[in-house]
Amino acid sequence: MIGNLVQPEFEDMIRRQAWTELRDSIMALEPADAADVLIDLSDGLEGIVFRVLPKERAAMVFSYLPLDRQEELIRSLTGEQARSLFDQMTPDDRARLVEELPPDVTRRLLDALSPDELRATRELLGYPPDTAGRYMTPEYVALPADMTAREALEFARKRGRGKETIATMYVVDEKGKLLEDVRLSALVFADPNTKVSDIEERGTVSIPVTATRDEVIGAFDKYDRTALPVVDADGHVLGIITVDDVLEAARRKTTQEIQRIGGSEALDAPYFVTEFRAMLRKRGGWLSVLFLGEMLTATAMGHFEAEIDKAVVLALFVPLIISSGGNSGSQAATIIIRSLALQEMGLRDWWRVMRRELLSGLTLGAWLGLIGFLRITIWQQLGWADYTAHWVLVALTVWVSLVGVVMFGTLAGSMLPFILRRLGFDPASSSAPFVATLVDVSGLVIYFTAAMLILRGTLL
Amino acid sequence: MIGNLVQPEFEDMIRRQAWTELRDSIMALEPADAADVLIDLSDGLEGIVFRVLPKERAAMVFSYLPLDRQEELIRSLTGEQARSLFDQMTPDDRARLVEELPPDVTRRLLDALSPDELRATRELLGYPPDTAGRYMTPEYVALPADMTAREALEFARKRGRGKETIATMYVVDEKGKLLEDVRLSALVFADPNTKVSDIEERGTVSIPVTATRDEVIGAFDKYDRTALPVVDADGHVLGIITVDDVLEAARRKTTQEIQRIGGSEALDAPYFVTEFRAMLRKRGGWLSVLFLGEMLTATAMGHFEAEIDKAVVLALFVPLIISSGGNSGSQAATIIIRSLALQEMGLRDWWRVMRRELLSGLTLGAWLGLIGFLRITIWQQLGWADYTAHWVLVALTVWVSLVGVVMFGTLAGSMLPFILRRLGFDPASSSAPFVATLVDVSGLVIYFTAAMLILRGTLL
Repeated sequence: MIGNLVQPEFEDMIRRQAWTELRDSIMALEPADAADVLIDLSDGLEGIVFRVLPKERAAMVFSYLPLDRQEELIRSLTGEQARSLFDQMTPDDRARLVEELPPDVTRRLLDALSPDELRATRELLGYPPDTAGRYMTPEYVALPADMTAREALEFARKRGRGKETIATMYVVDEKGKLLEDVRLSALVFADPNTKVSDIEERGTVSIPVTATRDEVIGAFDKYDRTALPVVDADGHVLGIITVDDVLEAARRKTTQEIQRIGGSEALDAPYFVTEFRAMLRKRGGWLSVLFLGEMLTATAMGHFEAEIDKAVVLALFVPLIISSGGNSGSQAATIIIRSLALQEMGLRDWWRVMRRELLSGLTLGAWLGLIGFLRITIWQQLGWADYTAHWVLVALTVWVSLVGVVMFGTLAGSMLPFILRRLGFDPASSSAPFVATLVDVSGLVIYFTAAMLILRGTLL
Repeated sequence: MIGNLVQPEFEDMIRRQAWTELRDSIMALEPADAADVLIDLSDGLEGIVFRVLPKERAAMVFSYLPLDRQEELIRSLTGEQARSLFDQMTPDDRARLVEELPPDVTRRLLDALSPDELRATRELLGYPPDTAGRYMTPEYVALPADMTAREALEFARKRGRGKETIATMYVVDEKGKLLEDVRLSALVFADPNTKVSDIEERGTVSIPVTATRDEVIGAFDKYDRTALPVVDADGHVLGIITVDDVLEAARRKTTQEIQRIGGSEALDAPYFVTEFRAMLRKRGGWLSVLFLGEMLTATAMGHFEAEIDKAVVLALFVPLIISSGGNSGSQAATIIIRSLALQEMGLRDWWRVMRRELLSGLTLGAWLGLIGFLRITIWQQLGWADYTAHWVLVALTVWVSLVGVVMFGTLAGSMLPFILRRLGFDPASSSAPFVATLVDVSGLVIYFTAAMLILRGTLL
């Protein structure tokens, strides 16, 4: 059951030095649950637990620990024990750990690998970050094409233990080129004398080793498989990617996307794990860029200083108007960014989106403008504020400006992601706050232009 | 291979009326790829393709089509064909389709189901939306506990065909209570005479039927399984959830989260599928709420009208200062919302976060303030602008205000998600734009208060 943890009992076993009982109780847990128990144990005790576990299980539990606990644990175990832990991990888990650990810890660990293990890890590490090559594991079962179902089952029985997944196996020719995939279930159900290449009817799907993280996630989303083979340019199988690693990658991708929408560089690590200075740099970088953009508002306002001087009442509505443009802009940007990411729409749809957003902007702007107009009228009539003798014209200026600003906001917000995508950038890269900044500056111009047209001869 | 489509060839086959060739070519494709081909076919032709496909395959391809194409296709097929298509779908796919189709189409389809099929669909539909009950399928294989591995394989061979997944089977007692899960691979590798309940060593994980969507996604994230059993309060197996449906659910959840961060109610449907009026309502609702909040800025500005009148130069920096507060606030809010969603932190961490964010806000505010101070100094010195004789004091006011506003922004942005979570709301509910609005109003108060303290006796 989810969340059914018992760590006080474990601490008790450790106190009583009941090692066999401790070992058996932890073996009875899911590795993910065992990791949760370890996380909640008092400092130092987790090392003891690792010492009583069989190596293979210890490695599984270890792979579920958060990065900071993994690092702590490696430092606390003796060199020999840490090495054996590392040795038992699957190559893809190991490759990812190596990438994230501090270099000195990594070096100590890599030194201890067997030449074969080292090769597997090095091979995975040779591919660029966030490509299919980094997510794959070489631990799959390949079947020669002329094997029968019976022989294949026998083969899987011998070779399959310890492989990351044998639920699907891969039929290859004598050069290792992928011909077909075969599910274990299909193998079990097939006539024992059928050739393995004749068992599955469905087409074969594979992922190029150079595929990006998004392409890998997309392929799993699309094909509903629990594992997919990774091939080189000639179609040779290099490894497989399993769906659990894809779920993890998808989650990290979403985090980056959300952080960028929020106007920050992606942190790429949990909040408390990110070093304070690294976080300041990532957040401060974007804030500075946005600040430099916003400085244009001071320039724009400077141009209208004379108008503000003549009619101070105009200044009162500046924050209301520019923030409405910013809100409608980031709303439109977020919706379009997400639709593009989900491939609900493509670049070719920009015109359809633009027509729809112009109409949205017009309607939303007219609506907000109406609220603004009523606000000014009511405050004026009830004597809560004095918006000069020409308050009707002021209210009209606010209404007209809101139509213009909200239309411009939705237009800029919906088109910027298309433009960024067209130029080869990731549309999620801070589009939303960038749109808000853009709209702030142009919103001021729209507002004061409307004011000069409507209030000429009265207040201005 | 990904994206290796050939729909011109298919259109050609249709023109040549080469039905057998068409059928065989589509059968050779992955169902997901076949669906892509259909999407790209000219209007009306997809109905023809469905008519040549065997029922079961047609249903698989159908389940990969987007909702609007599914609806279109159902309307275009004759009643009988649509019914048979529907009849072949798995119960969970069918339940989700029924929920999303217009009621008249649904009724026509439900009428045609066999009593058993109807029961399965109705059962799934009886659970509240977005709970485990809606995602499960009753198509799993249950094994009696006293079966041997050999008998279980035989049993799976007979009962497993057509079940959604048999890669994992479930050992139950005579009352249907879950005892254990057994992977097909473990069954294949076990001694044929072992009891099925003695095969697996790992613990058994199950999902309560009332679990929320987030809990379901969390369980899959944690346990790295391709399917998990769903149980009632007494532990009886009701169905299973497969990882493909979880990937889909996780994607929809992310979309809602992102849209809410962007300041809109979640659209719950693709952009072009969402009706224009429904979209206006969802976007306009939040924009109106934010607008009402922003109206407080007009009130706040009203309080400082006298100061603006005396020193118009103060008005020039209003947009710059409030937007910096808003940016730092939504940045902090987004980062914290995501960390809470990923359970990187919990409610109890609020104090650690607050200390860290106060320090971040101080540093970032001091930095942005420095840029602002330099901007004013440079423009003044180069004669590009005239910020009065007391420009140094104006620049100092801007600096001090930025420290205060950015600190308040990061503080409000980081604490609001905790407060919302504490009160039982979803922290993602428009926190980011809400923070921006809150900070706009308080930013004005901070700015003008700083101005009154620093400029008293000179400009004010």
